[in-house]
Amino acid sequence: MTNGKLILLRHGQSQWNKSNQFTGWVDVDLTEQGEAEAARGGEMLKEAGILPDVLYTSLLRRAIRTANLALDAADRHWIPVIRDWRLNERHYGALQGLNKAETKDKYGDEQFMAWRRSYDTPPPELADDAEYSQSDDVRYAGLDTIPRTECLLDVVTRLIPYFEEEILPRVKNGENVLVAAHGNSLRALVKHLDNISDEDIAALNIPTGIPLVYEISADGTVVNPGGTYLDPEAAAAGAAAVAAQGGK
Amino acid sequence: MTNGKLILLRHGQSQWNKSNQFTGWVDVDLTEQGEAEAARGGEMLKEAGILPDVLYTSLLRRAIRTANLALDAADRHWIPVIRDWRLNERHYGALQGLNKAETKDKYGDEQFMAWRRSYDTPPPELADDAEYSQSDDVRYAGLDTIPRTECLLDVVTRLIPYFEEEILPRVKNGENVLVAAHGNSLRALVKHLDNISDEDIAALNIPTGIPLVYEISADGTVVNPGGTYLDPEAAAAGAAAVAAQGGK
Repeated sequence: MTNGKLILLRHGQSQWNKSNQFTGWVDVDLTEQGEAEAARGGEMLKEAGILPDVLYTSLLRRAIRTANLALDAADRHWIPVIRDWRLNERHYGALQGLNKAETKDKYGDEQFMAWRRSYDTPPPELADDAEYSQSDDVRYAGLDTIPRTECLLDVVTRLIPYFEEEILPRVKNGENVLVAAHGNSLRALVKHLDNISDEDIAALNIPTGIPLVYEISADGTVVNPGGTYLDPEAAAAGAAAVAAQGGK
Repeated sequence: MTNGKLILLRHGQSQWNKSNQFTGWVDVDLTEQGEAEAARGGEMLKEAGILPDVLYTSLLRRAIRTANLALDAADRHWIPVIRDWRLNERHYGALQGLNKAETKDKYGDEQFMAWRRSYDTPPPELADDAEYSQSDDVRYAGLDTIPRTECLLDVVTRLIPYFEEEILPRVKNGENVLVAAHGNSLRALVKHLDNISDEDIAALNIPTGIPLVYEISADGTVVNPGGTYLDPEAAAAGAAAVAAQGGK
């Protein structure tokens, strides 16, 4: 049996990536650039001959549309789809909707980076009656509790058990699984796959639209630790751009 | 419990609808007009407050993209998705790829209409090595036999058991189910829902991009026989255009 591949794809540029706002669970759309990145990601998969057998997405439009555009470009639009809230971006609490540069100016570098990259300290909670709250969003009606904020540890806690129960068994079984998700839900996954410490994960950034491929054997071992970006140069440039957010 | 609704949506105009070619299982894309029809179909659902809880599509790009565009417009892009080949268009056999007007000129009106609308006589089989054959298409690799041609009866035979086992129970349970499919797979479904005879089904045509809604009670009774088009005027004009195909 050929080893299965886990293909991680962060959504293409979103409206709020472009306007430099904290997004979290707010359901913003892709920009035109983001649409092009998504299609290009699908072309890379096709060129590399890494064809997804099944797709997992979050419940957020920017990841869903990225997957649709990528699969269409890869001629794999017809594969089965599973959507789950546990692949959602980290909930950004009271920061959702705020401009990153303004937030950095107002609260200072240290607080800004703590909110963005602290492993276990979430931002302040978002009020249920706030403009960008998801407390009344029907797509989360089945949850026991809808998050009001999350740190990366919270994402790890909700996501990794789901990954281990639902996604990993398929890859171990030799399937190619595409996961179309978000900067921080994918950071949580990469932390787990590469055994990255709570401290070191702060420095890891994931670029938009470039497939990151992990080859995984039948016993669950990652054959290529760190994964393989299908366009390593573009990935490095993209990761540096994410790291520099908060600038003007 | 509120009655569930079965929402039938034929894909928007495809490249080969526009160029007047027999399509069947050939995986052609939407035209720009088709994309606009799909989005408009989603807006109609939103305006009518008929929000799908789950989506079923065929394995063909024109139905999948129609569903994606419609759900995006209806703000229901996040619902669960199930794709199945049994919702595919009728396989058009050796006619796949041929121009409808040329075919009508070459074989005459009677043969042309028999191929299009005969209930139980399929067109000649498509050879496995023909340009538009699906014999090597990986998406059908799991089927016992990949069709080489189909009449409407063949579609009824493959589709209705699937509908009764997989789709109808959800509607009876009060869910709104969107089925994004094709002219002839939807004709097969409507024939079943409305008990239309093998003869009378020949005259039934389904327009592109306009949701046709059946309200179905918990015991499986159709509350509104014939279904309800969300834009009846546009639906009548669209059905007349389908009936007139084969002209130049």
